[in-house]
Amino acid sequence: MSINIGFIKEITPDEKRVALVPESVKKLSDKGFRVFLEKGAGEKARYHDLSYKESGAEILESAKEALSRSQIILKVQPPSPDEIEAINPDSFLIGFLQHYKYPERINMMADKKINAFAMELIPRITRAQSIDALSSQAAVAGYKAAIIAANMSSRFFPMLTTAAGTIRPSRVLVIGAGVAGLQAIATSRRLGAIVEAYDVRKAVKEEIQSLGAKFLESPLVAEGAGGYARELTQEEKDMQHRFMADNIGRADIVISTAQVPGKRAPIIITKDMVEKMKPSSIIIDIAAENGGNCELTKPGEIIDYEGVLIYGPLNLPSTLATHASEMYSKNLLNFLILLTKEGKTLDVDFNDEILLKSCVIFKGEIKI
Amino acid sequence: MSINIGFIKEITPDEKRVALVPESVKKLSDKGFRVFLEKGAGEKARYHDLSYKESGAEILESAKEALSRSQIILKVQPPSPDEIEAINPDSFLIGFLQHYKYPERINMMADKKINAFAMELIPRITRAQSIDALSSQAAVAGYKAAIIAANMSSRFFPMLTTAAGTIRPSRVLVIGAGVAGLQAIATSRRLGAIVEAYDVRKAVKEEIQSLGAKFLESPLVAEGAGGYARELTQEEKDMQHRFMADNIGRADIVISTAQVPGKRAPIIITKDMVEKMKPSSIIIDIAAENGGNCELTKPGEIIDYEGVLIYGPLNLPSTLATHASEMYSKNLLNFLILLTKEGKTLDVDFNDEILLKSCVIFKGEIKI
Repeated sequence: MSINIGFIKEITPDEKRVALVPESVKKLSDKGFRVFLEKGAGEKARYHDLSYKESGAEILESAKEALSRSQIILKVQPPSPDEIEAINPDSFLIGFLQHYKYPERINMMADKKINAFAMELIPRITRAQSIDALSSQAAVAGYKAAIIAANMSSRFFPMLTTAAGTIRPSRVLVIGAGVAGLQAIATSRRLGAIVEAYDVRKAVKEEIQSLGAKFLESPLVAEGAGGYARELTQEEKDMQHRFMADNIGRADIVISTAQVPGKRAPIIITKDMVEKMKPSSIIIDIAAENGGNCELTKPGEIIDYEGVLIYGPLNLPSTLATHASEMYSKNLLNFLILLTKEGKTLDVDFNDEILLKSCVIFKGEIKI
Repeated sequence: MSINIGFIKEITPDEKRVALVPESVKKLSDKGFRVFLEKGAGEKARYHDLSYKESGAEILESAKEALSRSQIILKVQPPSPDEIEAINPDSFLIGFLQHYKYPERINMMADKKINAFAMELIPRITRAQSIDALSSQAAVAGYKAAIIAANMSSRFFPMLTTAAGTIRPSRVLVIGAGVAGLQAIATSRRLGAIVEAYDVRKAVKEEIQSLGAKFLESPLVAEGAGGYARELTQEEKDMQHRFMADNIGRADIVISTAQVPGKRAPIIITKDMVEKMKPSSIIIDIAAENGGNCELTKPGEIIDYEGVLIYGPLNLPSTLATHASEMYSKNLLNFLILLTKEGKTLDVDFNDEILLKSCVIFKGEIKI
């Protein structure tokens, strides 16, 4: 008996991604899975029903049908109450679940004995890299943040030598050098900007430099006993504030990406720092989803503060839906292969750390 | 007696550029010119009154005052009837005049004996390169077209190697390899796309290749006797159509820039060619200002034709107002130095080809 996999149109506003792309459907079909989708599920990500059909999927008329005929359901956004209603008990649901935001949906799924795995809880271990959807989508966000900055700016990113003289390149400051920050650095460098980057973790220095950017070294050593951060004195806090203010004030573009898992993003760019920026400067605050790194950020909006444009975009991966879906789909495909041992079983092996840590609900029990 | 130069806020909708930037004002002041501006003239291009003041300019309360106190008036867009009203007889006006679009304004200026020079009529000779505003602004347009394409696309431009597999780079086709086309090629290449370019002039082949793009060679030789293009046979026309359709069909992004001075832009991308494109493809038609290179282009709008987005942006240089103004301002500065012999005279030397060819009105006489 083959395992039935289903996916549907994402109904969350502004979500253009789709859980599986035709290429992944083909691989699953070849492995003996049976794949169902709601018609038009990939439309917004520019994948059409015909491609899915040619890859071996069966197109169904409604989301309800696709959900009720599947043992494994793949999602991008958390399922809505109506969607949960349509899912059979003992099915598996895999996607970004955002359990802290939607506890009532988690309870609803647990009551219905739907087994659920959260893609954002995949542990960041080497073996799980090909499943790490937070990373793949963060790479999209970092790239797109740099492109948006270039599109909003009234200045060139690259240096331009013209018959009438030379245009100076833009100065880009990237705050936070995780996956998103590194892509923002790489993309800004590609476009020819002068790039500086700041991160509290000094370990990222070499990676930043290898991308052609300058690592901004804080004058402070905040490491205390045992490598833990120690409390700063007021004088040290002032010094750190001046250090950030000076660097932010020199930048034409600031892309800020500092996030702490499960917490509000730290405020790094204060109002007085923005006041020191040149008019025509731009701040792209991709931590906006979690409150933002800039004190003035309004999530989802562009605000003009004395000539400085501050934009806190939401759901950046959705704006690059074709490729973001391709990457996410590959993450899901690799997860499915692990979960089902190549399509052979639905007995979950919880000795596997990846499955153990990403499991949110199993047999009616909430695991987190 | 020093020569008075004035510039004002541009009132054409969506025009954010300003004729002079503070750096050029400084150079003119140093040469003995007296510079007036309407307060806030550079605001939209992110140049503030304080910078102008520090560069030696005098800020005046109204456009009328700035216009009436100046012997030379610098503009970006053609002057409005009200502006012409405020200009003194025997003054000089320099800017993009678009005489074919506003013949009544040309007549009005001639009647008032305002001497007028058009920046778009600067001849494209080596000596005039530093004055060539069409080129400087076309460079801005070409850069921005590539950035807009990257921002609108649901795909990455660069190749991306991730733990879950490789993302293929976008294929960009640039049609027309003039100044704008070459900047679009360079910017797309910087971003890591695979770039192909087409131009009827085979002489640009090497320049295209030196930017890392592939020159698409038409299978046709349309050169007739004496180097002139000859009429194509129907069979040859069909062959050329298939050649374009095939190349356009393979592209993720088409940036089209083909323009003929003073004429409607040629239609190069027909509806049936768009129909062969993949959904998720993008056409940026920067010839939209002159009707567009694509049959489906609606100037100023984004249209979705069966999943292909077609955008014909208007006034792209204004969207990069800070740097576009800097470049245009340098062009004007160099023109002023030529016109006035370093600030010494307002007697125009029409033995100079640049002044002769760019002159639209002199002493009440229309020269074009």
